[in-house]
Amino acid sequence: MILPIFIASLLFSSSYAAVQDFCVADLNGPEGPAGYSCKKPAKVTVDDFVFSGLGAAGNTSNIIKAAVTPAFAAQFPGVNGLGISMARLDLATGGVIPMHTHPGASEVLVVVQGSICAGFISSANSVYFKSLKMGDIMVFPQGLLHFQINAGRSSALAYVSFSSPSPGLQILDYALFGNNLPSELIEQTTFLDDATVKKLKGVLGGSG
Amino acid sequence: MILPIFIASLLFSSSYAAVQDFCVADLNGPEGPAGYSCKKPAKVTVDDFVFSGLGAAGNTSNIIKAAVTPAFAAQFPGVNGLGISMARLDLATGGVIPMHTHPGASEVLVVVQGSICAGFISSANSVYFKSLKMGDIMVFPQGLLHFQINAGRSSALAYVSFSSPSPGLQILDYALFGNNLPSELIEQTTFLDDATVKKLKGVLGGSG
Amino acid sequence: MILPIFIASLLFSSSYAAVQDFCVADLNGPEGPAGYSCKKPAKVTVDDFVFSGLGAAGNTSNIIKAAVTPAFAAQFPGVNGLGISMARLDLATGGVIPMHTHPGASEVLVVVQGSICAGFISSANSVYFKSLKMGDIMVFPQGLLHFQINAGRSSALAYVSFSSPSPGLQILDYALFGNNLPSELIEQTTFLDDATVKKLKGVLGGSG
Amino acid sequence: MILPIFIASLLFSSSYAAVQDFCVADLNGPEGPAGYSCKKPAKVTVDDFVFSGLGAAGNTSNIIKAAVTPAFAAQFPGVNGLGISMARLDLATGGVIPMHTHPGASEVLVVVQGSICAGFISSANSVYFKSLKMGDIMVFPQGLLHFQINAGRSSALAYVSFSSPSPGLQILDYALFGNNLPSELIEQTTFLDDATVKKLKGVLGGSG
Amino acid sequence: MILPIFIASLLFSSSYAAVQDFCVADLNGPEGPAGYSCKKPAKVTVDDFVFSGLGAAGNTSNIIKAAVTPAFAAQFPGVNGLGISMARLDLATGGVIPMHTHPGASEVLVVVQGSICAGFISSANSVYFKSLKMGDIMVFPQGLLHFQINAGRSSALAYVSFSSPSPGLQILDYALFGNNLPSELIEQTTFLDDATVKKLKGVLGGSG
Amino acid sequence: MILPIFIASLLFSSSYAAVQDFCVADLNGPEGPAGYSCKKPAKVTVDDFVFSGLGAAGNTSNIIKAAVTPAFAAQFPGVNGLGISMARLDLATGGVIPMHTHPGASEVLVVVQGSICAGFISSANSVYFKSLKMGDIMVFPQGLLHFQINAGRSSALAYVSFSSPSPGLQILDYALFGNNLPSELIEQTTFLDDATVKKLKGVLGGSG
Repeated sequence: MILPIFIASLLFSSSYAAVQDFCVADLNGPEGPAGYSCKKPAKVTVDDFVFSGLGAAGNTSNIIKAAVTPAFAAQFPGVNGLGISMARLDLATGGVIPMHTHPGASEVLVVVQGSICAGFISSANSVYFKSLKMGDIMVFPQGLLHFQINAGRSSALAYVSFSSPSPGLQILDYALFGNNLPSELIEQTTFLDDATVKKLKGVLGGSG
Repeated sequence: MILPIFIASLLFSSSYAAVQDFCVADLNGPEGPAGYSCKKPAKVTVDDFVFSGLGAAGNTSNIIKAAVTPAFAAQFPGVNGLGISMARLDLATGGVIPMHTHPGASEVLVVVQGSICAGFISSANSVYFKSLKMGDIMVFPQGLLHFQINAGRSSALAYVSFSSPSPGLQILDYALFGNNLPSELIEQTTFLDDATVKKLKGVLGGSG
Repeated sequence: MILPIFIASLLFSSSYAAVQDFCVADLNGPEGPAGYSCKKPAKVTVDDFVFSGLGAAGNTSNIIKAAVTPAFAAQFPGVNGLGISMARLDLATGGVIPMHTHPGASEVLVVVQGSICAGFISSANSVYFKSLKMGDIMVFPQGLLHFQINAGRSSALAYVSFSSPSPGLQILDYALFGNNLPSELIEQTTFLDDATVKKLKGVLGGSG
Repeated sequence: MILPIFIASLLFSSSYAAVQDFCVADLNGPEGPAGYSCKKPAKVTVDDFVFSGLGAAGNTSNIIKAAVTPAFAAQFPGVNGLGISMARLDLATGGVIPMHTHPGASEVLVVVQGSICAGFISSANSVYFKSLKMGDIMVFPQGLLHFQINAGRSSALAYVSFSSPSPGLQILDYALFGNNLPSELIEQTTFLDDATVKKLKGVLGGSG
Repeated sequence: MILPIFIASLLFSSSYAAVQDFCVADLNGPEGPAGYSCKKPAKVTVDDFVFSGLGAAGNTSNIIKAAVTPAFAAQFPGVNGLGISMARLDLATGGVIPMHTHPGASEVLVVVQGSICAGFISSANSVYFKSLKMGDIMVFPQGLLHFQINAGRSSALAYVSFSSPSPGLQILDYALFGNNLPSELIEQTTFLDDATVKKLKGVLGGSG
Repeated sequence: MILPIFIASLLFSSSYAAVQDFCVADLNGPEGPAGYSCKKPAKVTVDDFVFSGLGAAGNTSNIIKAAVTPAFAAQFPGVNGLGISMARLDLATGGVIPMHTHPGASEVLVVVQGSICAGFISSANSVYFKSLKMGDIMVFPQGLLHFQINAGRSSALAYVSFSSPSPGLQILDYALFGNNLPSELIEQTTFLDDATVKKLKGVLGGSG
């Protein structure tokens, strides 16, 4: 029986060649435009490909009554380089995921519990929104403003997936009012009045 | 108030420029390597971006006690060109999604109900499998053999997402025994004996 | 002299093979996720690769005292499929290009006349802005909110280039207040009050 | 003669800019999703771009009477980042390259000696196979199960090229029976019976 | 036996989803930036994936004593969309493939008969060339000037593969002297003198 | 007011996830096929995204009366990974940017001052050239030979943008005559005579 010899020689070459099957993120290594450095294959275990952090509801005891729990490459190193990631959305009654974009990915959402009104606005300025019931899925094209609102009388839960391991997340209000962007620049570039800007900066912790 | 003039001129240009925000599949148009042709933007509605076909359980009254319901570009035209798609997995008690690959995408799975033993095998011939509980997610790198088995005593439900709108699906048994690939070629290339091949061809409807 | 024979045979094959050198957009053909269909190579002339539409200043007699003139694939078919496009920014004294994103491209800007205060906000909510003088260039990463303001006492002119032939353009105010997105949804997802929303809808032509 | 000054200044900038012409793999540096780190350009020589390892026949004194000799990025660092690689297939009389996939690349094969019966199975479960004679080429789309069998009475030799520097290689029998994947899981996911699985595990060195 | 029901339902969905496994070129359909339109899957046969046109030597009875026979998407429709293609190089004794580039692909060459001196020049202006013997392979990074010369006393044969189905081919002499590019422009942009330009235009059939 | 809690938790996750918004080049870190390593986000400032090196005219006191000043990733680290870069072209009266290619990018040029005759040659050996006036833009598809010549009686200035942060630059004369490529190889692969080659080697500093 000579087969094992053949197998051993193939094993040698394929184990080298297989390095690009996956690239579990080494969060401490150098990062490049395509993602994090890869953990050494010999140290990779099944636990690198499994993530339990979406198993518990996020804390919705806040003003938006909602929470986003990400499983991007930074939280779930197994997705690094694989063109995909996930997040969990919890919306208590009345909860809202405010207007936001993902600069680097398209998103698909599945409603697992409750009902959600979700929508996005296109570059051509068309508005697409609908009330989704349990089991419905909706896709949000890359980079466009979109939102999700609990449309029912009980908690809602959705899982969202992204076409990138690092989709980014830019929440409109937070981007405008939650940092040190000078009020004058905000007002000039959004047509919002000074009182509105100052009030929202107060709420969202912005300065300037 | 002169702003509307500004807006109107921008509208004109951006409506042209926005065509690539999305490309809802026109399943009757020519298809290219990057996907289906785009439906005319003027005919696109929110219903192109929403799909309800994953809302009902697949029929698991079959020998594998399981069902896969896809929401790929062919079923859900809104994902065409957006680098993402989904499917629903239903596993009755004892249900199995047999060994398979997706030639064109990585996959991430979230367990929504029950528990599932899932695993994959790498090019370097390492095996990664684990029993997943509700809320756990697992990623399967592109093109590798993988499987899902109901690991509990009740039905299990999972949603899977893919890093392509057309990930493809090659089920091992079906590819080997469910078509007209001559038995002799199967035997030569898999080391399976003739009786086994013939028996599985009988079960899976293969000829030759 | 036998060379022409060789050349003729190579010409034959290379003229076939060369089709992918470029793909000048046929705006009337089917469109796909990668862009417009290609004009037949035999009908392509140098004028497909040259565009004069950025040679004249845009009309800045409007409330923002500014104008954006695009040379995307829809206006400049020669860039289709080539991963690049341009636009011209004119800013009269006091002019502002309001907060906006390009969902599908990064942008680089060069100041050709005057001075411009430009900035963007990252997913990590950091603000990067600076006053640019003639000859300075600045890059805006894909999908992030950014703006440009005339920072001088005379007109300013900039050319911007994009990493896509169809970068898209989503102007924040226009997306929020210039369409039929219901005021209630805007208010819920932006924390803006009803009076502000209604006022801006009035200015920007929105309904609902 | 002032030209050298011009040249020198261009040299400076272009030598910096040229780094991305190629990225010869530094197999000891960190690896990322796009491939290996680059060797310093100053240390690169023509020998990084030339590989002689495919010049000798692989050892076919084994049960499959065949050998695969790869020139992937791990063996031939010059192809790193260039979207291409090669391998050599030797098939003694009666030799077989068993059913396998390349998870990360399409493949094109050219028969250089002898004749080879080659085929693949699509996601739609169609079978495409043909007997190839010397000089014929055949393409195998990414990720699909395929095989090659010596179809003649003498040795056969083929060169195969891949659309990735690290295509991966997953040999079906080896993936199923050459590791520690528990027999029970194999049986449940392939419909093979226990005796068949155990027998092949014995041959291929698998445990569990 | 209920399995066939399961299989039939999967067949339905996967046959739809599988369209992107391959996209055999329909040379008469519209072409886009990603390649040719796809032939209907039902009309695809194994002959679309096999090409015999490289089986015969090209005609080397010409001034360069060499021939290039392409198997790009235009000649070999099966490679459309698959990121790979091939060509055959025949070099009679003294034969030369003149200095050229492939604008859209990297290339890997394997010497099947004879010996070949091959080389390329990088953006950093380094020269890499070597005499290759039978079985040696060499890679040429995308877009760089390169050449192949018969380095032996008998005919040489090589197969080359490309990282694109439509790599393009720009032969330097042909680009400069084989068309209607005005001599004055050639002279200004190459520093060649008028007599040299005119002489080579005569040889290569150029005008202007 | 509980909102800040929500914001703080989102900040935490999004600051991790946002790493791929941009990847400012760390020129001292390891480089990979996708570009340079990323500078730590915490050390990034607005000055990484702004470059003033194109603000001054290049030195045109040389034999070509022209200068190219690049703002590629090596000079302007902010563009690393963003798919775009720029350069400045200065052409004194009579100035010429000689025949060259960018192996890794398409280019778009805008004339800011003076007039420029620009052109390129396709793989199909068609010539496309035109005299451009101020404000005209022209696109040059990836990898093709092209040139720019001052077409007026005064200085000309153009900005060019590229579809890659590291487009590369291969100047034909410099590649042929400005290094140690042996004259014999040049003559064999270009049909230029020995005297011409030796003369140009003298001018351009080549040896061999």
